[in-house]
Amino acid sequence: MKRSVLRAEIGEQPDVLTRLLVREGANVRRIARGLSRHDLRFVLIAARGTSDNAARYAQYALGLTCRLPVALAGPSLVTLYDSPLRLRGALVIGISQSGQSPDVVETIAAARSAGSPTLAIVNDPESPLARAAAEVIPLHAGEERSIAATKTYTAQLLAVALLASALSGARRFAEGLGALPDAVADTIGVEGAARRAAERLAHATRLVVLSRGLNYPTAHEIALKLKELALLDAEALSGADFMHGPIALAGPKLPTIVVSPPGTATEADLAALAAELRRRGSPVLLIGPTGRGSLPVPRLPELLSPIVAVVPGQLLAFHAARARGLDPDAPRGLSKVTETR
Amino acid sequence: MKRSVLRAEIGEQPDVLTRLLVREGANVRRIARGLSRHDLRFVLIAARGTSDNAARYAQYALGLTCRLPVALAGPSLVTLYDSPLRLRGALVIGISQSGQSPDVVETIAAARSAGSPTLAIVNDPESPLARAAAEVIPLHAGEERSIAATKTYTAQLLAVALLASALSGARRFAEGLGALPDAVADTIGVEGAARRAAERLAHATRLVVLSRGLNYPTAHEIALKLKELALLDAEALSGADFMHGPIALAGPKLPTIVVSPPGTATEADLAALAAELRRRGSPVLLIGPTGRGSLPVPRLPELLSPIVAVVPGQLLAFHAARARGLDPDAPRGLSKVTETR
Repeated sequence: MKRSVLRAEIGEQPDVLTRLLVREGANVRRIARGLSRHDLRFVLIAARGTSDNAARYAQYALGLTCRLPVALAGPSLVTLYDSPLRLRGALVIGISQSGQSPDVVETIAAARSAGSPTLAIVNDPESPLARAAAEVIPLHAGEERSIAATKTYTAQLLAVALLASALSGARRFAEGLGALPDAVADTIGVEGAARRAAERLAHATRLVVLSRGLNYPTAHEIALKLKELALLDAEALSGADFMHGPIALAGPKLPTIVVSPPGTATEADLAALAAELRRRGSPVLLIGPTGRGSLPVPRLPELLSPIVAVVPGQLLAFHAARARGLDPDAPRGLSKVTETR
Repeated sequence: MKRSVLRAEIGEQPDVLTRLLVREGANVRRIARGLSRHDLRFVLIAARGTSDNAARYAQYALGLTCRLPVALAGPSLVTLYDSPLRLRGALVIGISQSGQSPDVVETIAAARSAGSPTLAIVNDPESPLARAAAEVIPLHAGEERSIAATKTYTAQLLAVALLASALSGARRFAEGLGALPDAVADTIGVEGAARRAAERLAHATRLVVLSRGLNYPTAHEIALKLKELALLDAEALSGADFMHGPIALAGPKLPTIVVSPPGTATEADLAALAAELRRRGSPVLLIGPTGRGSLPVPRLPELLSPIVAVVPGQLLAFHAARARGLDPDAPRGLSKVTETR
């Protein structure tokens, strides 16, 4: 098999996560102690592209552990309308691989000069975003040479999980953190099954990726990878929203991917959804459960499950790209930095 | 032409908007005066389905006029994870046609009993949602007999615009409010062109609806109507996100709809996007600009433009359903109340 930078970076994830756990645990606890001196009412997150899916995860993770409402900053308020938000009571977080996206940098810089606590979750600690924020959680993922983000996505999720853990003072998923790198390594072992599933999906004209709750962001990230790498027309939908309307599109021509890691609150609902999809004739690929034709992931505390559940999707997108004769290292029409105004 | 309840309700919109303006102006100003006594830091909105697109609009409208950050409440935090958010400093708004969605009602009731100011924007003033909230803006849209929401959507947007105007104390779009019902009536006049465009789109296997900024929610609502009524596989995307990746899917097999009302901040960017789509061979239907094959809308203050810009999309979805042999009054697989847990 031809070597691929992207595939190598997928494989680096257990080491990246280990490094982040070891190097940033104390820093994140220090940041959380500092934040506890503020009267925080809510969190505003600026992010684009893959990092926006990490922001969606943060919305669930911080809501569940700290009961903090999270608003996602549409960059257009500042950049299109020149109308900055009032941020009294806000913790403002910028999430970015490169730390270069001008709109994310601008949001953080404006928040900091208005006196809000600011935090950058970023791979490049020398980037403009890292310099703009008062506090930084560097991802230690090493240079990401692929255009499509993989290892920086899982590292962003882990950084958010560490922050949520430290801010809440809860240790409820602390024991899961240590198990995470091995769980990701084990999940990479589904590669053969992911390759076969990718070959079945390669000729789909259209795909829907479904999940709920904490793994709804995972569905978005898997759909994005399938779009970016394999040029497959994949859309992420909440299982709940899908049942209310778009399920009418289900049938043999609409393959679906259902992301449902074991032991989550949404497991039974998503199993029922998968059964209904099969009843209507849609091919269903399950990510999470064990069973014939599915791509299993190990059981972890639910809050950490998105970090493993995305991995089969990364492999799937990589092999779907190859099956479609595309080069996953050179996806068409993508640039590394989102220069969104 | 066979009579349709849905088509009649589309036609009622100028009257619905007039009624809402006349009956609720003073009430909304009173609500805003009451809210000004609270130290509001942010807004949390609970909504599902079409009303969720009104919530997206509120995110822009309240951000632009009042600089208030708006978080959209994923209902699953409460209903899946039993983890209510801390809402100190929040105005909590529930938006719903029926006022029956249990998760929206639950979010408002929990916020009110925690002491937060609460507001229901709802068509049925006797509904559980209206009873749960401390304040109500009733939509006065009359019974909505169609399963697919049209007149209650534009009424929800107008209620949000009135609230934004009253909360900000700004009169900058007040003069536009009076012109709105006629602008909507004029826009319904594009029906012939909408019908012809619908006949061209009827055989599409896939459609993308694009916009940016204040009309990004309009793109979502038009895509939802095309899905619900015509069972077309339509997806809304931000023009900015589309340029970064999915534009690789553009081509003769991907018809696109670009929503770009005249006089908006995003007009030039969206014109450039439409030109690029045409260069790549994608059929482009413009909603907003005048010109051959486009569905024009009158110029209004940008904040009000989403209320007219959705109307050609409603007509398009109605005629696309008919062109596909479907009954727009009885869409497949839809129920009026979203019973999302």
